[in-house]
Amino acid sequence: MRRHLLSLSLLFTPVVALAAPKNIIYMIGDGMGPAYLSAYRYYSDDTSTKTVENTIFDELWQGVASTYPDDDTYVTDSAAGATALATGVKSYNGAISVNRQHIPIGTMMQLAKRLGKANGIVASSQINHATPASFLAHNKSRRNYNEIADMFLDYRINGMPVADLMLGGGTDYFIRNGRDLVSEFKELGFQYTDSWQQLDTLTKTPALALLAETALPAALNSKQDKQLATLTEKALQLLTPAEKGFVLMVEGSQIDWCGHDNDIACAMAEMNDFAKAIAVAKAYVDNHPDTLLVITADHETGGLSLGAAGEYKWLPDVVKQVKATGRSIAKQLKQAGSDQDALALWSDLTSISLNDAEKAELLSTRKQDEDTLRKLSNKLVAKYSFTGWTTGGHTAIDVAVLAYGKDAKNFAGFQDNTHIAKKLIQYIQQTK
Amino acid sequence: MRRHLLSLSLLFTPVVALAAPKNIIYMIGDGMGPAYLSAYRYYSDDTSTKTVENTIFDELWQGVASTYPDDDTYVTDSAAGATALATGVKSYNGAISVNRQHIPIGTMMQLAKRLGKANGIVASSQINHATPASFLAHNKSRRNYNEIADMFLDYRINGMPVADLMLGGGTDYFIRNGRDLVSEFKELGFQYTDSWQQLDTLTKTPALALLAETALPAALNSKQDKQLATLTEKALQLLTPAEKGFVLMVEGSQIDWCGHDNDIACAMAEMNDFAKAIAVAKAYVDNHPDTLLVITADHETGGLSLGAAGEYKWLPDVVKQVKATGRSIAKQLKQAGSDQDALALWSDLTSISLNDAEKAELLSTRKQDEDTLRKLSNKLVAKYSFTGWTTGGHTAIDVAVLAYGKDAKNFAGFQDNTHIAKKLIQYIQQTK
Repeated sequence: MRRHLLSLSLLFTPVVALAAPKNIIYMIGDGMGPAYLSAYRYYSDDTSTKTVENTIFDELWQGVASTYPDDDTYVTDSAAGATALATGVKSYNGAISVNRQHIPIGTMMQLAKRLGKANGIVASSQINHATPASFLAHNKSRRNYNEIADMFLDYRINGMPVADLMLGGGTDYFIRNGRDLVSEFKELGFQYTDSWQQLDTLTKTPALALLAETALPAALNSKQDKQLATLTEKALQLLTPAEKGFVLMVEGSQIDWCGHDNDIACAMAEMNDFAKAIAVAKAYVDNHPDTLLVITADHETGGLSLGAAGEYKWLPDVVKQVKATGRSIAKQLKQAGSDQDALALWSDLTSISLNDAEKAELLSTRKQDEDTLRKLSNKLVAKYSFTGWTTGGHTAIDVAVLAYGKDAKNFAGFQDNTHIAKKLIQYIQQTK
Repeated sequence: MRRHLLSLSLLFTPVVALAAPKNIIYMIGDGMGPAYLSAYRYYSDDTSTKTVENTIFDELWQGVASTYPDDDTYVTDSAAGATALATGVKSYNGAISVNRQHIPIGTMMQLAKRLGKANGIVASSQINHATPASFLAHNKSRRNYNEIADMFLDYRINGMPVADLMLGGGTDYFIRNGRDLVSEFKELGFQYTDSWQQLDTLTKTPALALLAETALPAALNSKQDKQLATLTEKALQLLTPAEKGFVLMVEGSQIDWCGHDNDIACAMAEMNDFAKAIAVAKAYVDNHPDTLLVITADHETGGLSLGAAGEYKWLPDVVKQVKATGRSIAKQLKQAGSDQDALALWSDLTSISLNDAEKAELLSTRKQDEDTLRKLSNKLVAKYSFTGWTTGGHTAIDVAVLAYGKDAKNFAGFQDNTHIAKKLIQYIQQTK
């Protein structure tokens, strides 16, 4: 009888059902449009060889995804993008896993928790930022950071918060006037740290690490090497014992922020940080074949292109020599003791030789606010590297879909972003 | 014995060898970066439905390709791009299937001809333009149009020119002071026409049609509906009888030119013309399963993005209402009898309501040259549709690779543009 049933189930179960992986690692490069992948290849290129080496992104490329939200703009924000990627349902810009009527839409992490899978999120932003928020909570607006942080604790499944593991930034939201969510998490049995040095004290789930007041430092400015890779490795270590497997979401949150700033050096450093985290995840899949790794972006940011001003060239060597983000350069230039110091600092931080007119503009802009100076700094790096940008916002361009491991081919070709989530939810539904 | 050999060959022949298609249709959208595919989806979207419909590009998407040339710029021109796509070897910008030492590199069309396959080219440019030229000829510079046209006739394999079929524009180069190549082609037995109405008089290969002095009209301005689809259908009809199969290259040549002009309405019309040609090729594959269809681009042009000025929207409805290319609009505005006529004409051609400052700028620019007026016209369409551009030249962004039919999956994932050609050449080498 059992055998009979098995045969029937084999006959009538779709292929996807047979291939459901036990573990899912879902990585989202916020704002990581396709040009970021091309750029990172040439930025990482070993110029001593004739060939351009493939990146880890190139190795894993399977398909592309459209990202339009549920309105007539075609351009999504990170909240609607993450809602689509976390629930398989499109919503309006700003929505954290709620529909137009503000009714919650179930997320894959909630489903995983209900079915006894472990789950976790890792982000280089505050963990209650739009992307991770859309996996764990519901809110009519991404800007309600405190409400979202509260829901991370208060939304319960089987008496516990949705996430078994949260690693990222955000003490400003989780320990604040009126509520100390960290203490409440601890009371529920969560291990907790706010220190990179004490990450090892997290030995099992549930666990929480908030390693910055808001976001982690930008990769380009950070003293902490491989930020996201370290957290991804930690998360995988803590989730591995889960009997029914796990779903882990890892966000390279700040690729998007560099894009908004039109800061190519910042963007490439974040891509590098994200690439190292992907390498950790890929190695995990190699050692745990019942795992699927899927990597995508919620949208493109900045309208990045590798070519500008009619010239047929893009110069990653210029980008590689920039030692700090435009924000950090602006801050440092403002603090310089003299114009001469400022110009020396510019040379030291960027290795870009400005012409006299540009030097004069830099010095006069130094008297203005940091934001204006940051824009000029990024504009000069873009000019000398022939990097093009079209907007400080997002664009409607399709994003890459990479996959590796069990059933990776299911993500090949063109798909809508909601279909990525639907496929993952189908796997989770088959939790045994 | 025969059976024994067959077994051995099955054991030792790589998979690709078994799957070699008899016929290859190779379509190149010049300048067609990935943003053009996203844009065309939203431009074609039936806004009366909630879903965004997939385009034929979406249906056929398999992978992506890098396009960098053999220098340190990372940004290719169309000649180096086409050389890579026609020979599997990278060269310098400007090269027509020659290497840095100006030594010819064998092309897939020459190989096909040697092995007894029929072959042909279709282009919406003059047929001696960089992309088709790189399949049929060799020259140190794409700009040597007359030398290239001469080589189309003079380079012989088995006593005949390389191409069995050439459909596009270019009488200015093929019938010129000093040489009448058309007469010489006719003497070799080529059927010839220079008229769309008489395309039916071409009944077999070898055949030549030159339907314009240089390029065919831009799709947006053309009275001839489905230019490229009509020529593609004709080419497939004439090549089908070839006993050992055929290789056909079809170029959507002018997507690139619209990109250079930063003219989104022009680009979308060319994409539409190209899409209709792809539909013809796809239907052919459905009826002739021993055929492989591969579609890619030589590079991206313009740094196109769908979003600008910080706004989270792209408005294809604005683009759809533009009735002529920026070049045509500029010409017509210059010819208008009065400022009032010019403003009425602008409204009629674009349906864009300008503010007073923009009207004044348009009228004052009308007194300048056509190029300046064209740039302003395209800038206004970009502004109102929130289309972003970063350059009048090319960029280093990866391009899409689409495939359909026999062994289409061989083009999945990330690859270099030379590998597309190498795979096709492997198939051609197996001509039986």
